[in-house]
Amino acid sequence: MEKFEVYVLGCGSALPTMRHYPSSQVISLREKLFMVDCGEGAQLQLRRSRLRFSRLNHIFITHLHGDHVFGLPGLVSTFALLGRTADMHVYGPADLEKVMQPMLNYFCSGIPFTVHFHTVDTTVGGKVYEDRSVIVEAFPLQHRKPCVGYLFREKPALPHIKRDMIDFLEIPHFAINDIKAGGGWTTADGVFYPHERLVTPAEPPRSYAYCSDTRFVPELAETLRGVDLLFHEATFAETDAARAAETMHSTAQQAATLAKMAEVRRLLIGHFSARYEDESVLLKEAQSIFADTLLAREGLCLAL
Amino acid sequence: MEKFEVYVLGCGSALPTMRHYPSSQVISLREKLFMVDCGEGAQLQLRRSRLRFSRLNHIFITHLHGDHVFGLPGLVSTFALLGRTADMHVYGPADLEKVMQPMLNYFCSGIPFTVHFHTVDTTVGGKVYEDRSVIVEAFPLQHRKPCVGYLFREKPALPHIKRDMIDFLEIPHFAINDIKAGGGWTTADGVFYPHERLVTPAEPPRSYAYCSDTRFVPELAETLRGVDLLFHEATFAETDAARAAETMHSTAQQAATLAKMAEVRRLLIGHFSARYEDESVLLKEAQSIFADTLLAREGLCLAL
Repeated sequence: MEKFEVYVLGCGSALPTMRHYPSSQVISLREKLFMVDCGEGAQLQLRRSRLRFSRLNHIFITHLHGDHVFGLPGLVSTFALLGRTADMHVYGPADLEKVMQPMLNYFCSGIPFTVHFHTVDTTVGGKVYEDRSVIVEAFPLQHRKPCVGYLFREKPALPHIKRDMIDFLEIPHFAINDIKAGGGWTTADGVFYPHERLVTPAEPPRSYAYCSDTRFVPELAETLRGVDLLFHEATFAETDAARAAETMHSTAQQAATLAKMAEVRRLLIGHFSARYEDESVLLKEAQSIFADTLLAREGLCLAL
Repeated sequence: MEKFEVYVLGCGSALPTMRHYPSSQVISLREKLFMVDCGEGAQLQLRRSRLRFSRLNHIFITHLHGDHVFGLPGLVSTFALLGRTADMHVYGPADLEKVMQPMLNYFCSGIPFTVHFHTVDTTVGGKVYEDRSVIVEAFPLQHRKPCVGYLFREKPALPHIKRDMIDFLEIPHFAINDIKAGGGWTTADGVFYPHERLVTPAEPPRSYAYCSDTRFVPELAETLRGVDLLFHEATFAETDAARAAETMHSTAQQAATLAKMAEVRRLLIGHFSARYEDESVLLKEAQSIFADTLLAREGLCLAL
């Protein structure tokens, strides 16, 4: 199966703690890396992850709070120092370019690559990226600043050739791609083997959704239905539900409720408030509603 | 003796490594904290140092390379989240305000304190800060961007009262400050005790100098003469002297040569290039010229 992994670089909220970096994750999908959010220290954490910097060409920003973007100038500077020449693409709300470009102009002038900013419509969302392996869609979240989540949907893979059938029928190499694409095979003596006898079906395409920061939005269940992994912020415990409402964040219980409504496979919670010394409180609260819940932590890598 | 300590929050150079954060230090002088440089992650490291954020009101920036300033927006944001109300003062080259103010306007609007930028003349330097305990002076360094070092000079302290003399002569409490300030005392029966008999001299005032980033500037020896602790960048080893010259950095040998010329008490080297897995190479090189050399490392605290 092709690689589809989620790395947590930071899963704290705005106030730094000894335990957490601010928000940043990397999705490693086949040969590419995609970053979601880029809080202060993301480049240090990326270094620690030992992921290859050069595989990262696309960064998706959810919203313009500092704990989700302050790592961007440092990341770009470091890429320049490492001699990067490939262009970088940064996706985010409309103001992102306005606020970041002057910093880059000042500190990263003359670097050997271009940073392209792509504006994401935070009111309706929609497809923001596509290649032959994946589609990335934005969808609106509800927070104090315009904010989107991102949904990574793997494209359907081609079926697997049955090696023994190919050998047995002596099917030539040049015919393999046709068969993978849906074709059958007729032998020299006229016997037709339909597609289904020559292949085993591909694994079903996988999907990952990232929801941070947001208040509880039950309507998201449709967008998130059946994803293999849902990251949802759980800044607060239900005992602090009033504070969650006030700051437009979610509780662990709300994150789990959404996971259950959307019938996702697994839930990963993060963006923890600094007030919880012991985050198992958040985990237990979520697991009481949705059993397959995991706590995010720096350095965690989940394979989908 | 009053507190005068130097905390190393980060001592790497621009390229991040697993071992080092970019440049930042805190000087803890009596009741106040002063930060010099504020690389990405400085607020995280400050948190780890367990120094009280509220004691920090003054930040001195040496020059406008990202690895010395990218931590500033995050630090200000965090101070705001912590409910700070006291104004902050940031000192640095002329462009600092121009490049940082728009970031602060966007991400830190409505915070309950003001960040005041103070322009430091990078061509002549001079006094940039003074209170009853300390004078901070900037002095020009030579780097690819306009750059200054900072010299922290403790003001002479008042002498110590000889407790036993005070008790013996029954000198009243209200007279103590006069005596500390240089006065003597006449007893009820007319015997005069001169100042010198009532006090022991204060410790000599201490000084700390921070030189980063800079090429080797032998003329600095006069400015730095006799300081108790000199931090001097030693980005490279002498084997990479050509690279040091090209990038306007110093070698460990050059840092030590300046320390020797200036007859400082101790030398602390840092701003290490990522290329040295083992920095003892830099330490040995410096110690061969100036024995009292120390390697900076994150978390190091030196008392002067």
